This record gives sequence, structure tokens and C-alpha cells, in this order.
Amino acid sequence: MTTAHDPLRVPEAGPAGDPVRLARAYLLRVAEPPAPALAAFVGQCGAVEAARLVRTGTVPEPVREETVARHEIEMAEVDLARAESAGARLVIPEDDEWPSWPLLALDNAVSRGLRWAVAPLALWVRGTAPLAKLADPAVAIVGARAATVYGSDVAGEFGHDLAERGYAVVSGAAYGIDGAAHRGALAAYGSTVAVVACGVNVAYPAGHTDLLDRIAANGLVVSEYPPGTPPARHRFLVRNRLIAALGAGTVVVEAGRRSGARNTATTAAALGRQVLAVPGPITSSMSIGCHDLLRAGVASVVTSPEEVIEVIGPLRADGPAAVGAEARSTDGLSEAASRVHDALATRHPRHPERVAAESGVPLRKVRASLVELELTGLAECGDDGWRRTSAGGGGPMRT
Amino acid sequence: MTTAHDPLRVPEAGPAGDPVRLARAYLLRVAEPPAPALAAFVGQCGAVEAARLVRTGTVPEPVREETVARHEIEMAEVDLARAESAGARLVIPEDDEWPSWPLLALDNAVSRGLRWAVAPLALWVRGTAPLAKLADPAVAIVGARAATVYGSDVAGEFGHDLAERGYAVVSGAAYGIDGAAHRGALAAYGSTVAVVACGVNVAYPAGHTDLLDRIAANGLVVSEYPPGTPPARHRFLVRNRLIAALGAGTVVVEAGRRSGARNTATTAAALGRQVLAVPGPITSSMSIGCHDLLRAGVASVVTSPEEVIEVIGPLRADGPAAVGAEARSTDGLSEAASRVHDALATRHPRHPERVAAESGVPLRKVRASLVELELTGLAECGDDGWRRTSAGGGGPMRT
Repeated sequence: MTTAHDPLRVPEAGPAGDPVRLARAYLLRVAEPPAPALAAFVGQCGAVEAARLVRTGTVPEPVREETVARHEIEMAEVDLARAESAGARLVIPEDDEWPSWPLLALDNAVSRGLRWAVAPLALWVRGTAPLAKLADPAVAIVGARAATVYGSDVAGEFGHDLAERGYAVVSGAAYGIDGAAHRGALAAYGSTVAVVACGVNVAYPAGHTDLLDRIAANGLVVSEYPPGTPPARHRFLVRNRLIAALGAGTVVVEAGRRSGARNTATTAAALGRQVLAVPGPITSSMSIGCHDLLRAGVASVVTSPEEVIEVIGPLRADGPAAVGAEARSTDGLSEAASRVHDALATRHPRHPERVAAESGVPLRKVRASLVELELTGLAECGDDGWRRTSAGGGGPMRT
Repeated sequence: MTTAHDPLRVPEAGPAGDPVRLARAYLLRVAEPPAPALAAFVGQCGAVEAARLVRTGTVPEPVREETVARHEIEMAEVDLARAESAGARLVIPEDDEWPSWPLLALDNAVSRGLRWAVAPLALWVRGTAPLAKLADPAVAIVGARAATVYGSDVAGEFGHDLAERGYAVVSGAAYGIDGAAHRGALAAYGSTVAVVACGVNVAYPAGHTDLLDRIAANGLVVSEYPPGTPPARHRFLVRNRLIAALGAGTVVVEAGRRSGARNTATTAAALGRQVLAVPGPITSSMSIGCHDLLRAGVASVVTSPEEVIEVIGPLRADGPAAVGAEARSTDGLSEAASRVHDALATRHPRHPERVAAESGVPLRKVRASLVELELTGLAECGDDGWRRTSAGGGGPMRT
């Protein structure tokens, strides 16, 4: 990998040369993400026209503010060439491999007023796998840099088992939990995606240079920052929204009271994603963040990779729409019925006795509640027992 | 302590001799708890008349079934004498020290169809403190016998800190978590109550003979089983309903997948009590029960004694009524509002920024939700920030 900039290098012909790609490469360079005004502007008049107007400075004031400082920087072809020399490419919304569905959560968030959650104009991607394929289904595993042995072991096990079951493991390539999750996925010969807060050709953190190479060789290193961009504190927070969006759910393994992982978790919750937290000893400062997320109701407890899959299910059922639907459909349930609903799983049928034990609701009341849930379409009864339906969150059965 | 029965001993005069006390002592001896039919019968015609009719066998069939096997056993005076010789007494509902309020949860449960949750006809109490005084406010701390060092340390710390703050610590005097909780309370020179599944004069478990003596000297050993009654498996489960009822909330520190502590927790939930579970490593089999309770929505996470107090608040606010009120009052809140409500504390005011961080709800939306909660009486704003009101659970502010 190199951070050297070679202006003499001439970009190849082909996709790198297409005007839309060049326009988006230019726009990623001239505006520091997130740039909501620019994104909306591109949505109105298209990337090529938007780029032309940004160059000439004839744009609405909000767009001008986001682009005035750098609009004269013309490095699109150079960035595309540098990416290529690092085994990377620019994936744009016009490409088949654009992860439209996962990123839809960002557009929906913006429409709910979270302007900072704007979708990226394009993504620099290092590695050969198609981005959309890796992002569906995917699970984000995040956590503290200063992880304990317990946290690292859990992250590695979750990364391994989820990758082994066909889920791409999305994380941030940081030391600690992130690295352990990526390594676990690689050890299972599975897919893993590192979303970084710098250029995809920048070796950061330095100690993960080899890990990043292995991730790129077996999965993808992704960033909205142009090649050569150094990491910066605010970029990690901006980057976190992409990790939260690309994962159907986010699993927090360990987190201090104030931590980036916690920021990713609250972002995922704001995007309507499932947020899961791994509990730990209350005597461990590295579990405080997880327990806070649980106490605040932002995250639910998870103790095994199987439970992650049970909660998250297939990606499509976990988009903001599905979650929104759940929020509506489970409103106004009796306390007993909603406890029973919580005790039901999406994919593994359970008998009323098991549900009673899980929920602490008396069996007689469980039976009544199950009927109530069936009538409202939140549960269904099969030969092997009762299951939560997609309307109730967790998505339809995988078969 | 002695289990020897000395029929020659003549009971003292005074309260031990009063007919109602004698009647209830007789009834506790002739029916194995729980005896819902007998309890209802006593409610209808009074203890003295009920005892007379039970003796003669002229009672409704359900009552007969509960009493026929032992109705000829006349040991009331002997039991009262043996209790007295063990430093114990029989506390009856007619006494000022009867814990009417805590036990009300049992009557309410029965009226909801949980017949097994019937309130005791009377309670054998060893120790000098007034029972009602110790039961208000009280917190139940329960857990595994085969506790880990982590669990024992946490139980001891919780027992100590809660007792130090004036809460009586209720538990079952078993090895492991129970013992650690009692010892923690004693170390703080606080009150602690052991509810046992045998006679209050029976040294069980043998290894806790001294502990039981210390509990009786500084608090109370309580049982609905007559003096000399040996422990039995089913009696532990029957006993658990009393632990769950006497505590304004139940804290589960460690529990295996199938455990008595778990039974106490689900019973407490069925009684409308607050149930709190201490998380632990997902790699520890002794934390499985806690995590299951959390995942099933039966318990909420607790990581410190302060959080216990924050959730439980004063006893009166945590009766089933209050909890029922919460179940009603928070129904139909928007997802954001209910997240914000979860992130508010009863006693410690929080600023919107803190609530946003806790809840993962954007600040703008937090402000709107707080107003919504204020209008519905679920939150109130003071000089130091926002607090959850009693209507929203957790009870009114302690001042």
C-alpha cells in the first residue's frame, strides 16, 4: 500500500473514465462528508451537472459553503488512478454493486431530519468482491480499542460464527474488538468489510497494515474519503454511520462509558437498526458502555452468535421500514402479550411452556396472548410451535 | 436452636394464648401451604370459626381436601411454645406488625387467577424487630447456590450498600448468593430478613447455623412452616413467593439456566414487582439465568446498588398498582418518547443532552418527546433537569 501521490500516472480507460464516476470522484474530494446540501443538490440535477456547477461556484449558498474551500481541487482522475494502483475502485450509485438497500436507512434518516446521516456520494472500495453482495446480509461488530481478553475472545467468536453462517462482518479495522471481529471472520474463510475513516490506501492503524491487506484480499476495505486522506477524529464519527447502515444490526461487544462503539450503536438505533450489546462483568470498565446501552433501552442483550441471527434475520426484514412496522404493530399490546412476543423467536418455533418459562407469564395467560398475537399477525403457529412473524420484527423465516 | 419437641412445656400467657393466634397456629399446621381454599375460607368466616369447622371437618370440599390429612393434629399451643423457646413468635394479620402492604401483592395476584400466590395465614418470625418495619422498604437479593467469586462479591456489595441506605435485604439464607447478600447487610449493621422453607428453629442449611443466628439477632428469620418443619423441595418454591412479595423489587445476581432464583424472579414479575438482573460474562454458566431473564424482558439490567434504588424507589410506589399504572400510562407512546422515558431516572434529574446520549434519540426529538411526556404526566422538569414521575414507574422522588 502507498500514500504517495503520482500525478504523472495516467488513469486507464474504461469505467474509470466515465463522466459520472469522474464527477462523483471530484465531488467526494471537494466536500468533506457529511455534505447534506451537496447530496441533495446532486439528487436534484445529477452528479455531472452538479460537479459542473460546483466548479463554477454557481450553486445555492448551502452547497457553496460545503464546497467553496476545495472546489478548485481537480484530482478526480488522479484519485481514480491512485485507487486503481492500490487495488481499489470507486463504486457509485449508478453501479450494480451499489448497496442501495442498506444505505436506504440513511436516506430515510435524512427524511426524518437527521441531516448528518446523509448517504455517501460514492464509496472507494479496495478488494475484488462486489460491495452489494457483501452487504447483504451483513452484521456490524464494534467495540472498544482497549478491549479485555474476554471482549476480544467474544468478538472473535462472534465474527467467526457469523461469517461461517454467511453473514459478512462489518467493522472499523481498529485495534481491540474491531480487529478481533475481522480476524474471526477471516479465520472462518468468510467475508468481512472494514469501513475506514481514511483513504483505502492508507495504512491505519499502522499495526493493522497486514490485517487490512488480508481484509482486502478476502473482503473489502471501504471509505468515502479519497485515496491518501489521513484519519481525523471527526472522520471516525462520520464513518460510523456507514458501519451502522451496512450492518443489518450492530453488535457492541465491549465499550467504555464514552466510546466510538457507543456512538455507532446509538447511530444504528437512530437508523432503525437492531442494536445488540454483549453483557459483561459489572466490575469491568470495558462493559460499562454495553450495560448503559441496555439500561437505556437502545440495545438488547445478546449472548451468542445464534441469538444475533435470531434477532437480525435476513437483511431485508431489518430495514428501517420493517422496524417501523414493528414499532407500530406492537403498540398497545397488553403487558403480558408483549412479554410473550419478546419471548418468541423469529426462526425457532417454541411451545407455550417454553414461552411461559422465558417470559415469566403464566401458561394460561401465555396461551391467550399467543392467540391475541396471532390475530394481530405478530405470531404464527406451526407444527413445531409458535414463531414471531416478520411484522413483529426479526423478519420472515429463512428456509 | 433446637428441633426437639417438648410437650410438657406450658406456653406463656398473653398474646400466645389469644384465640385468633391459636386458631391461625392450628391452621398453619393442618394445611400445607399454599392452601388457597382454606385462605379464602378464613377470609369468609374468620380464623377462629374456620379453625372450629376444620376441626369438625364440616367444611366445603376444597377446604376439606387441603386439611383432611392433618386436621386432627392439635399442636397450636405446643408450636407457640416451641417458637417462644427459640426466640420466635407467630405474627398474624391482626397484629400491627403484619406486613399488609407488601403481602397485598399476593392477594392481587390471586384475584388475577394465580391461586398458588395466596398470602400466608400467619408467619412464624424469629427475632425481635417488628416485621412490617423491616419489610418497608426492602429489596430481595437472590441467586445461585453454586455462585462464582464474582457473584458472591456483587451480592455482598449490593447487600451492604442497600442495607447501609436503609433497605432491608430479603433473601433465602441459602449457600452462595443468598448468604453473601445477608452477610453484606449484616456487615453494614443493617436489617436483613431470611425467609426459610423450614421451621424458624431448624438449622438449615447446617453450614449457615451461625449466620441464621446472626440474622435473627439483627433482623428476622421468617417462615410460614411450623417450628420443627424440615425443608422440602416444593417448600422452596412455595417460600419463593414470600421473598418476591416482601421485596419491593428482586435482584438476581447469578442464576443457572434452571434455578430457584429464576423461579423467584418470574414469581416477582408475576406479582408486578420490579425484577432486576445483574449481567455477567456470557462465558459464565452462572450468568445464563440472568441473561435469559433480561432477554425475555422479565428483568432489566442493574449494575450498581444506586441503580437498584433508582428503579425501586420507595416501597409504596412499587406495589402492583403502581406498576399496573405504568403499564397503562406508557402504552401508545411513540418509539422515541418511550426510549426517552426509559432514559429518564426517577430520582436523578437529567439534561436533554444526557437523555439523548442515553437513549440514542436525536436531541431535537428528545426535547419534543420530553414535552410529550410532561403533558402525559410521565416526566417533570426541575431546576436540575428532567425526571421520571411516579406515574411512569420507579415511584415518586425520595427527598
